[in-house]
Amino acid sequence: LSSEIHIPARISEKTQVTIHDVATRAGVAISSVSRVLSGHPDVSPSMNLRVKRAVHELGYEPDLLAQSLRRGATNTIGFIVRDISNPLFALIAQRCEQVLREAGYSMILINSDGEIKTETENFSLLRRRRVDGVIASLVSETSPKVKKAIENLRMPLVLLDREVAGLNAGAVICNHRQGVYEATKDLIDRGHQEIAFISGGKDVFVTRDRLRGFYDAFKEAKVPIPTHWIALGRFQADFAAAETHRLFTQNPRPTALMAGGIGSTAGALRGLRELKLKPGKDIAFVAIDEWLMFDVFASEYSSVFRDPVEIGEQSARLILDMLKGGQARQLVVETKFTPRKSSAGGLKIK
Amino acid sequence: LSSEIHIPARISEKTQVTIHDVATRAGVAISSVSRVLSGHPDVSPSMNLRVKRAVHELGYEPDLLAQSLRRGATNTIGFIVRDISNPLFALIAQRCEQVLREAGYSMILINSDGEIKTETENFSLLRRRRVDGVIASLVSETSPKVKKAIENLRMPLVLLDREVAGLNAGAVICNHRQGVYEATKDLIDRGHQEIAFISGGKDVFVTRDRLRGFYDAFKEAKVPIPTHWIALGRFQADFAAAETHRLFTQNPRPTALMAGGIGSTAGALRGLRELKLKPGKDIAFVAIDEWLMFDVFASEYSSVFRDPVEIGEQSARLILDMLKGGQARQLVVETKFTPRKSSAGGLKIK
Repeated sequence: LSSEIHIPARISEKTQVTIHDVATRAGVAISSVSRVLSGHPDVSPSMNLRVKRAVHELGYEPDLLAQSLRRGATNTIGFIVRDISNPLFALIAQRCEQVLREAGYSMILINSDGEIKTETENFSLLRRRRVDGVIASLVSETSPKVKKAIENLRMPLVLLDREVAGLNAGAVICNHRQGVYEATKDLIDRGHQEIAFISGGKDVFVTRDRLRGFYDAFKEAKVPIPTHWIALGRFQADFAAAETHRLFTQNPRPTALMAGGIGSTAGALRGLRELKLKPGKDIAFVAIDEWLMFDVFASEYSSVFRDPVEIGEQSARLILDMLKGGQARQLVVETKFTPRKSSAGGLKIK
Repeated sequence: LSSEIHIPARISEKTQVTIHDVATRAGVAISSVSRVLSGHPDVSPSMNLRVKRAVHELGYEPDLLAQSLRRGATNTIGFIVRDISNPLFALIAQRCEQVLREAGYSMILINSDGEIKTETENFSLLRRRRVDGVIASLVSETSPKVKKAIENLRMPLVLLDREVAGLNAGAVICNHRQGVYEATKDLIDRGHQEIAFISGGKDVFVTRDRLRGFYDAFKEAKVPIPTHWIALGRFQADFAAAETHRLFTQNPRPTALMAGGIGSTAGALRGLRELKLKPGKDIAFVAIDEWLMFDVFASEYSSVFRDPVEIGEQSARLILDMLKGGQARQLVVETKFTPRKSSAGGLKIK
């Protein structure tokens, strides 16, 4: 085979058994070993048996990278995560990996750490490392660099929570609008109008879709949208804490607060505590996204829930389908609003 | 170069620009391009310039895998995480990746999902994918399969929270003993003797080291060690919840509870809530490990803290040092006990 790869000695030292050893043991040519291992149809049963026996006896592990150069498949999926410190993403990745593993795929995870530059590099890295497909939650949807990296990817791609118009990619998106709409409607029904909304930037679908739900509830109730209480910027806790201080030290101040994302919720609650404003008493509060041990530590908080297990599972199933030649589709995972104690309060100060 | 790799056409379709294109553009032989890209010393300045200009003009990205076959280095570190759903590990991995990235290395993360079988496969996968080094938090330290996988690794390895006697590996371990010793001593000083201890299995260093601290405090105080209240098994919340039920429905029951790990803490607190036992009032409680938003949601809980940022940073620095030929060393990160409201209570039932 002209495509047989010569592996330099320096590498061979690292692995214990080489394809040469297998060929010697089986008493066949290296190209025959290669043909057996790559599942070439033109292999006699006795040849197949001799090689596989030698592989087994020597404990030979075919080199995945060399193999991938020959066959073009690595049975590995790359998962680019926007921010691994967000437990929601960790849970999505966990379930995704489980489903992929059951289907015979490994998953490698790369963290973009909230940085567009790192995200761009991560796409490049996965492409050059020859994964078979990529699942990604993006830092930004508007960055031209990321867009270019996606266009250059040329393998099945599933994006989490991103509208994919004009891109050849599958998507698993959550119906954030619906849950936030219900949560906002609930607050308006209780009598709130001055509702603050703190979340990440509008350059991601999540924020835009949540905001749609927020707006829709106000429009439907024919109540003016309190745009002066909307603070969008970053998902990090620091941003939300600072914005909570800025909004809730004004006079008059909002009577209710919705925080979008786990980081925003943490920051908002930290800010409220510093201002000695108690959710469920001094103000009404809704957390958008639940987190680890929510039932233990946050059982009094109203929430809009998106299920990370469902998102992870759907993402894995979609990319597996695309790897088999299936169409790039868009799947929707619903969100669920649950009112709890923290939705009470806030109105007596009006 | 006899080690030049012929890339089959099927693969070339995936990438836009090949080394052949660069050679044609630069008007040089492929082997010359290869020499320039691999930093071969025997390259003239004009050749260097011609090739690099062609690389730049064509936007050529050298194939990392083919490159790794030539050079033996991929500038990638593999991080095997015992359980990605544990936010502590996510934070360790996050910081580790940041430090590695600053040093020019990428990090890929693989989750063992609490399974020894997956962990063994992950070592094999990283070896075959040719990472330059591995950082790992192990599911089990006693599994012969994992031990064999480690022995076969043959590259720099840093283990988190594992004693590495007999292994050629670096380690970053926490001084769990000290923090748990102080927490236990504090409870004994308050008058507790019947202290329950729920945590994961003894097959990991973390548990053994915590238990040492627990035992030492009792020995020092000359109080009998309440071995009948020690429940070790799994780190998962379900286990801790069930054990909390088992221990705290006995009569007499323990007056205090220490839970080792975030999962154990979640399960223990869930169990106590179901039994209507309030930490800080009906029983004294100490959480071993803090978690995301601890300051917001768990500010009344006494804790033994290990700093994931410090652990991640030390792990990265150690493996970077080992990649440069440094010795495999053992680094120790201290833990810190902080008594809070939850340490009160429990004794009135005596």
